[in-house]
Amino acid sequence: MASNHQYSVLFEPVRIGPVTARNRFYQVPHCSGLGHLRPQAEAEMRRIKAEGGWAVVSNQETEIHPTSDLSPFAEHRLWDERDIPALRLMTDKVHGEGALAAIEIAHSGHHAPNLSSRAPVLAPSDRAIDNLYPKQARAMDKADIREFRRWHRAAAGRARAAGFDIIYVYAGHGLTLPQHFLLPETNDRTDEYGGSLENRVRLIRELLEETIDEVGHDCAVAFRFAVDEMRGADGMQAAEEGRAVVELLAELPDLWDVNVSDWANDSATTRFQPQDGYQTPYIEFVKQVTSKPVVAVGRLSSPDMMVSMVNRGIVDFIGAARPSIADPFLPRKIQEGRIDEIRECIGCNVCVASDNLGIPIRCTQNPTMGEEWRRGWHPERIAAKGDASETLVIGAGPAGLECALQLARRGYQVTLAEATETLGGRVLRESRLPGLAAWRRVADNRVYELQQLGNVQIYTDSRLTAQEVGELGIGNIFVATGASWRADGVGRTSRNPLKEHTPSVIMTPDAIMDGNLPIGGPVLIYDDDQAYLAGVLAEYLARKDYSVDFVTPAGIVSPWMENTLEQSLIQRRLIELGVRIHTSRELTAITGESAVIACVYSGQTVAVACRTIVPVTERLRRHGLFDQLVALKDTAGTAIKTVELIGDAAAPGLIADAVFAGHMAARNFETAPELAAASWFRREMPGLNESSSSSERKQST
Amino acid sequence: MASNHQYSVLFEPVRIGPVTARNRFYQVPHCSGLGHLRPQAEAEMRRIKAEGGWAVVSNQETEIHPTSDLSPFAEHRLWDERDIPALRLMTDKVHGEGALAAIEIAHSGHHAPNLSSRAPVLAPSDRAIDNLYPKQARAMDKADIREFRRWHRAAAGRARAAGFDIIYVYAGHGLTLPQHFLLPETNDRTDEYGGSLENRVRLIRELLEETIDEVGHDCAVAFRFAVDEMRGADGMQAAEEGRAVVELLAELPDLWDVNVSDWANDSATTRFQPQDGYQTPYIEFVKQVTSKPVVAVGRLSSPDMMVSMVNRGIVDFIGAARPSIADPFLPRKIQEGRIDEIRECIGCNVCVASDNLGIPIRCTQNPTMGEEWRRGWHPERIAAKGDASETLVIGAGPAGLECALQLARRGYQVTLAEATETLGGRVLRESRLPGLAAWRRVADNRVYELQQLGNVQIYTDSRLTAQEVGELGIGNIFVATGASWRADGVGRTSRNPLKEHTPSVIMTPDAIMDGNLPIGGPVLIYDDDQAYLAGVLAEYLARKDYSVDFVTPAGIVSPWMENTLEQSLIQRRLIELGVRIHTSRELTAITGESAVIACVYSGQTVAVACRTIVPVTERLRRHGLFDQLVALKDTAGTAIKTVELIGDAAAPGLIADAVFAGHMAARNFETAPELAAASWFRREMPGLNESSSSSERKQST
Repeated sequence: MASNHQYSVLFEPVRIGPVTARNRFYQVPHCSGLGHLRPQAEAEMRRIKAEGGWAVVSNQETEIHPTSDLSPFAEHRLWDERDIPALRLMTDKVHGEGALAAIEIAHSGHHAPNLSSRAPVLAPSDRAIDNLYPKQARAMDKADIREFRRWHRAAAGRARAAGFDIIYVYAGHGLTLPQHFLLPETNDRTDEYGGSLENRVRLIRELLEETIDEVGHDCAVAFRFAVDEMRGADGMQAAEEGRAVVELLAELPDLWDVNVSDWANDSATTRFQPQDGYQTPYIEFVKQVTSKPVVAVGRLSSPDMMVSMVNRGIVDFIGAARPSIADPFLPRKIQEGRIDEIRECIGCNVCVASDNLGIPIRCTQNPTMGEEWRRGWHPERIAAKGDASETLVIGAGPAGLECALQLARRGYQVTLAEATETLGGRVLRESRLPGLAAWRRVADNRVYELQQLGNVQIYTDSRLTAQEVGELGIGNIFVATGASWRADGVGRTSRNPLKEHTPSVIMTPDAIMDGNLPIGGPVLIYDDDQAYLAGVLAEYLARKDYSVDFVTPAGIVSPWMENTLEQSLIQRRLIELGVRIHTSRELTAITGESAVIACVYSGQTVAVACRTIVPVTERLRRHGLFDQLVALKDTAGTAIKTVELIGDAAAPGLIADAVFAGHMAARNFETAPELAAASWFRREMPGLNESSSSSERKQST
Repeated sequence: MASNHQYSVLFEPVRIGPVTARNRFYQVPHCSGLGHLRPQAEAEMRRIKAEGGWAVVSNQETEIHPTSDLSPFAEHRLWDERDIPALRLMTDKVHGEGALAAIEIAHSGHHAPNLSSRAPVLAPSDRAIDNLYPKQARAMDKADIREFRRWHRAAAGRARAAGFDIIYVYAGHGLTLPQHFLLPETNDRTDEYGGSLENRVRLIRELLEETIDEVGHDCAVAFRFAVDEMRGADGMQAAEEGRAVVELLAELPDLWDVNVSDWANDSATTRFQPQDGYQTPYIEFVKQVTSKPVVAVGRLSSPDMMVSMVNRGIVDFIGAARPSIADPFLPRKIQEGRIDEIRECIGCNVCVASDNLGIPIRCTQNPTMGEEWRRGWHPERIAAKGDASETLVIGAGPAGLECALQLARRGYQVTLAEATETLGGRVLRESRLPGLAAWRRVADNRVYELQQLGNVQIYTDSRLTAQEVGELGIGNIFVATGASWRADGVGRTSRNPLKEHTPSVIMTPDAIMDGNLPIGGPVLIYDDDQAYLAGVLAEYLARKDYSVDFVTPAGIVSPWMENTLEQSLIQRRLIELGVRIHTSRELTAITGESAVIACVYSGQTVAVACRTIVPVTERLRRHGLFDQLVALKDTAGTAIKTVELIGDAAAPGLIADAVFAGHMAARNFETAPELAAASWFRREMPGLNESSSSSERKQST
């Protein structure tokens, strides 16, 4: 149906060496936190993307040897032939949906701490490893380099045996040995692998040639390369050596997968890089240098931008990691002209955080991400409704919106009642803070979808009492009334409530998000939440010219945001805005016009002058209405059959957690309880029968 | 043979409810980083302890439900019946060695972030979880408590089915729901589970009663209880509520396993708690209150202290976690009168760090720990020698000592040549620094063992040239020449060498450990290593009345030491000693009488006056002799057949890594290369065939 519509260029097949992609949608390699620990979950997650229309579905960085052991993180593994069956699960499923399967075999050099294998850590030059564990990598000698090349070639062979169509050589993100050889900062060798660019490129060239030699008849060989480190003259630059590398290797790989380095730059959040397509200025030269197909990324969710990038000769493939996570059906929606239905990535990096935490991937926009195998959730399909007909969802924040949408899709009659004048709850409130505008897409997408459905009635400005709910006569009620930030400073570090002493005033984050401003400065923000909100509020108030002190028991600002790759950017921004930062300090008292903060190690206190104190510590669940409805349910004559508390009202968390909770409530509604319960228990477990090959290996003692 | 020797009281059998322990040696539950991800490795590690004479071998905290999900950490799991076979591996092996198997079933409450399961987090009261992930636990309602009790009872039943003899109720370390209910700080309930001590104990009582009801005919029910939080009046105290709890429940459990809380207090390092048996003052009251057997811990390695504790009526069982890791054969060595052969725990908490890193357990003293299954290593047995006869080990640091010892045990003629006057290398040097005296045991144990063997010749003060080595005519050489700390400041944060500018002087950590002192203060210690050494040197110099500035790019002092549970103690101690701490600062230049340090976020610089700068950044491998020997090996007429570089000279790391490398070199010498290589690849992998029970669970979509 799409062959001649405005996006038809995106659906042309493209040849990549010996294989052909059915269209231009290319899911580049991305981590998932599933990997070798959860291969069935990984395979099903990738299958869904192939079903959603991607022409190429890649896996993630795949360790090729015990000297590249990223434990405890769950990337993929292809150490030996025993890993083939787990990877075959994915290739079979991806092929079954008509897509090509790509594998990013990788050696992580000194980024691999080898904490489980305890193998030597390898690098071009002696140096500390890229991990706090106090050990060092050793400079590879010639024998090491030969061994590494042999491992890489053998892994390519195993990758082909596992059914992959495209096999990577990977020099990106600052994370792999080939790139470590390429960059002068990590390579001070004086032999033929160090010094001149040609010498530093030598290893990459050898890997490409040997991979082609090993599998090139059957598989395409892709080269993933970071053209720019975004460090100016301190690092590789696209206009300098970045371009020179492409020139040196132009026709060697079958495909160029180009991006910027390091990972934080490649996976920039909307907060710090709001522009979709932000990598284009760096990579647009590549197609001028090579005749081979080029894929690039940069949060490409807009079909118009995609068409333009192809037509302007910038790329052959639309690369995507995060947009394919937020909407695995993005290609198919474009093909079918359902542009408004695309669930756009909000660029929050909760997906990245999952990988950094060593846990299964999740997504704020797509609550089914990572749950395809475990819970059998599909991003576009949901079971038809059961016996009940009418449902009421109270509260139109992220949990309520998602719950209402999925209930409606199941075919229930849905009434959505929101106390305020707008739909979106905390999503709207937070999206008005600096840098978080894109988060609004969580609400926009769901409100749009709800509006398309005939079985949904939405009421704003409708704060309901339990009695009013009872009078509606609706049997099944979902309460998503959210949570409020505490005003008393109680949180992780202290369970002792602060006492307010005028003229200092405590102001909650909610009051600020409601649009109020402190009556006076200096403002002291106390962050015992240690995630994003306090840092964003500090930025907001500093930009409004308040004098701001930021106090946190942590050693750095917003430590949890290391997981989203934003921590250093946040702390730098606050410093630039003149915020005074007090780390390793606990807020212990308020005394008139100052706050008392104490060193978390020594207890030593100092007073910080302030007029307004904003504690960002914990939230209080708003469950009063729920409690009343539960009581009402048990009274005679009521129509109420079920009442469920969901989202922040049940357990405050990330927006991603609220969306997930809303989704789950809708999925599980009228599902047999034992089925719903069982999904919590489903997991992949070690096989207990050692393979015979490893039995033979057992060293005699 | 031991029935009437001076330690015979330790080998009396003791009844625990329906089961009987063969002696008084009791390996209390401890984490291993193996657990549910590596059950075969876990089982074999525990079997070795049973073989070593422990009467009771416990596993580790065992999650009973998806609401107690500690992912990505690898504790054990007993969520449902599918977990039984993995645990059965351990009980079969432990029983095969004549020991009892104990299981610590646990619910971690708000300490379990449930990051993989995504289940609600449960706690007595609403609160942030004990993890930076920004989400909260919800206060359990009565239905939640009933459900939890049901899960616990069911888990006890599954534990019995898995073959365990002793089943725990666990309220310790600040880590579990029963203890969270017990402590007022985490329980502000107003129902019958909150308020009075009797109310706060209620849940524990119910769990004990229900566990006894479920399995008490067949299994002993142990109660692990932290009698004191070591926070003075801010927490539970042994003399107050701690004792009251024991009085309330005195005869209910079959065994009292008592310790102090939190984990850092229970597993105190020798650096901060040098006294073996340090828990005795807290737990000695327990046996006065209950007639049931009591087990306690506190780094109990001295047989005389053990006998005294039994004879004085303090304990019935000698509990051990770390001493059983350092020497799994401790009971047997005592029984056989081989006291001098005990490999005493040095209290460094590298074992604890492994668990905190989510990787398999390791031990500085016992390099076979965690390698029993994977590499088939036994702590007391090693394969006999191969064809070669003479070996030379150059360097008597931790790698050289261990390599020489194991080569000698295999039957090789061993010559050990040490350049300095003492044996121990960095172990001796570091053990002279404040708090690290116990680390010396790593050298002492090995030197003692070497001295017992007839096939070892040890030469000190013997710095050899390559030519001299060649003239020895020994065919097989192991070079363990160690590493030196860099003087130029190059490390993780910067690859640009510092330039020295008099009158400021750069002094290396080695110079200080050699016994030199700075010619003048202030002394600036620059810590880009971020592990223990810089903090210890700061303490050393501050105690010698130097004025000390501590500069680190990290946000806290010694961040890696969070893994050993020491970080906050280190930072507090430096503050108490008057050390000025500059965090998030990089050392960028030296200019005459000051150092320039720059904010790692903003780049903003300040000058810090100093006369001496001690950079603790990276080490340089001393491999010159090795390189010469490799060259010599290839010349005509040499007797040299093999030369291997080991320990810090090959790859600087922890002392534990050096010992491991020395051990491996000795094990692998004359082992078939394919066997030695294969041990790197051995691992436990997910089974790919989903069990039928979970297939049935798949939700229809």
